[in-house]
Amino acid sequence: VRVLIVYAHPEPKSFNGAMLRAAVETLAGAGHEVTVSDLYAMEFAAATTRADFTTTADPDYFKYQAEERHAVEHGGFAADIKAEMDKLDAADLLIFLFPIYWFSVPAILKGWVDRVFAMGWAYGGGRYFDQGAFRGKSAMVAMTTGGPAEVFMPDGRFGGLEIVLWPIQHGIFRFCGFDVIEPFVAYSAGRVDDAARAAMLAAWRGRLAEIETAPRLAFHDMDDYYETGRLKPGIEPKTAAQRRRR
Amino acid sequence: VRVLIVYAHPEPKSFNGAMLRAAVETLAGAGHEVTVSDLYAMEFAAATTRADFTTTADPDYFKYQAEERHAVEHGGFAADIKAEMDKLDAADLLIFLFPIYWFSVPAILKGWVDRVFAMGWAYGGGRYFDQGAFRGKSAMVAMTTGGPAEVFMPDGRFGGLEIVLWPIQHGIFRFCGFDVIEPFVAYSAGRVDDAARAAMLAAWRGRLAEIETAPRLAFHDMDDYYETGRLKPGIEPKTAAQRRRR
Repeated sequence: VRVLIVYAHPEPKSFNGAMLRAAVETLAGAGHEVTVSDLYAMEFAAATTRADFTTTADPDYFKYQAEERHAVEHGGFAADIKAEMDKLDAADLLIFLFPIYWFSVPAILKGWVDRVFAMGWAYGGGRYFDQGAFRGKSAMVAMTTGGPAEVFMPDGRFGGLEIVLWPIQHGIFRFCGFDVIEPFVAYSAGRVDDAARAAMLAAWRGRLAEIETAPRLAFHDMDDYYETGRLKPGIEPKTAAQRRRR
Repeated sequence: VRVLIVYAHPEPKSFNGAMLRAAVETLAGAGHEVTVSDLYAMEFAAATTRADFTTTADPDYFKYQAEERHAVEHGGFAADIKAEMDKLDAADLLIFLFPIYWFSVPAILKGWVDRVFAMGWAYGGGRYFDQGAFRGKSAMVAMTTGGPAEVFMPDGRFGGLEIVLWPIQHGIFRFCGFDVIEPFVAYSAGRVDDAARAAMLAAWRGRLAEIETAPRLAFHDMDDYYETGRLKPGIEPKTAAQRRRR
C-alpha cells in the first residue's frame, strides 16, 4: 500500500510529531511505501489565489473553480499544487494527521484541500461519492484533541465525533470517492500523563498495523438519492448526520 | 449596532462581492457602524506560526495555545492579529461572509479564526458557550453555495445545513459565547439567473434590515451538561447535532 500522510503540526516534539514518526516507522516496517507532506515545514500556502495557476481562463473575473477546470485542461497548476496532486495520484491511502482546531482541521490543512482538490480533477462531471474520482483509494482522519472523549459523544457538549468530522469525512473524503476508515483520535493528548500517551501511541501503531482490514464508515450511495439530492422514501438514513425530514 | 464583516472572496465582481456591498450599504443606511476585514485584499496569513507573536513563552517547544496565553499576558500578538482583536472587541455583531469550500469556510477565513480567537482571550478559564468570552455579542454565517437547498436538507446528500455548519456555529461562535443568528444562505448563487440573484440580494438586505430582532439558534447551556460534558438525563437534545446516547 502506498500511503500519503498530510501532516499539519508545526512542532516536531509534539504528540502529533510522535504520531507521525510512529506511523512512518510502523507502515514502512510493514512494507508499505510512505510519503509525508509536512505542511508547516513546506510553508504550504493556504489561501486560494491567482498564484495557484500558471494559466488564466479569465483575467477580468477570478472564479476559482473555472480557473481550476482550465488548469486541468492546460496543465496550468502551480508547482506546489501539482506536486501534491502527483503524490495523491500515487497513493492508495491518504491520512490527515493534525490537532483539531475549532472543530476542524488547521487552516494550513484546509488550504491543502482547497487548493489541491481541484474541480475537474478531484471531482466534477458527475463524479461524486461512490462515483467519485478517487474510488478505490482510502482516507482517514488521525487527530489529537484538547477535550476528552465524553464531549465528542452523541450527547456530548461538542456533538458526536461523526458530526464534528462530517465536513471532513463526508464533505471531503467521501465526496471525492474515498472509502473512509474509522478515525483515530488521541483524546486530550496534551493533558494526559506519559503512560497514557504511550498507550495511545501503541493503539495508533496497532491501528496502522491492520490498516488494510480496518472498518470503513457507512455512507449512502448516489443511487440512494433522487436527482434532487434527497433520500428516496424507502431508504433509512444510515449516517448520524442525516435524518428523515420531519 | 457595530458590525464586523469578515469577508473571504477574492473577486469583487462575485456574488459574494455584491453581498458585501449590499450589506455595507444596508447596515450603514440603517445607522449601524460597519467595519470590513477583506481577508484576500489584506493577504491575511492563514497558518499558525511563531510570526504570530512578538513574545516567546518557550523557544524550544512551539505549543500554540501556550504562546497565545503568554501573548495575552504580555501584549505579544503580531500587529495583524491585534488589529483584528481590536475590531472584534469593538463589534456587537460578527458576520462571516464567504463561499462554502468543502463543507466549511475557505482556509483564509479558518486561519482568521485559528489566529485571532486566542486562548486566554476568546476562550479558556471556564468561559465557554453561554459562559463564553463574547457573551452579549451576536454572530452569523452568510454564505453562497454551489449546491441547491435540497442537498442541505436533513435527508439531503450533503447532510442538514445545521450539521454542516455545526463546527462554525457551535464550534466557533457559540463556543465563544456569541448568540448565533440564523444563517443566510444564497444557494447555487453562481448557477442561477440574474433575476434569481437579484431576489437573493433583496432577501439578504431584508435579513440585515431586521438583524437586531432576527431569530437566534438554540443551543444547550453549560448547566445542561454534567461536568464530564454529557447531557444530564432529564435534558432532551435540542440541536440537530446531538442525540441521546443509545
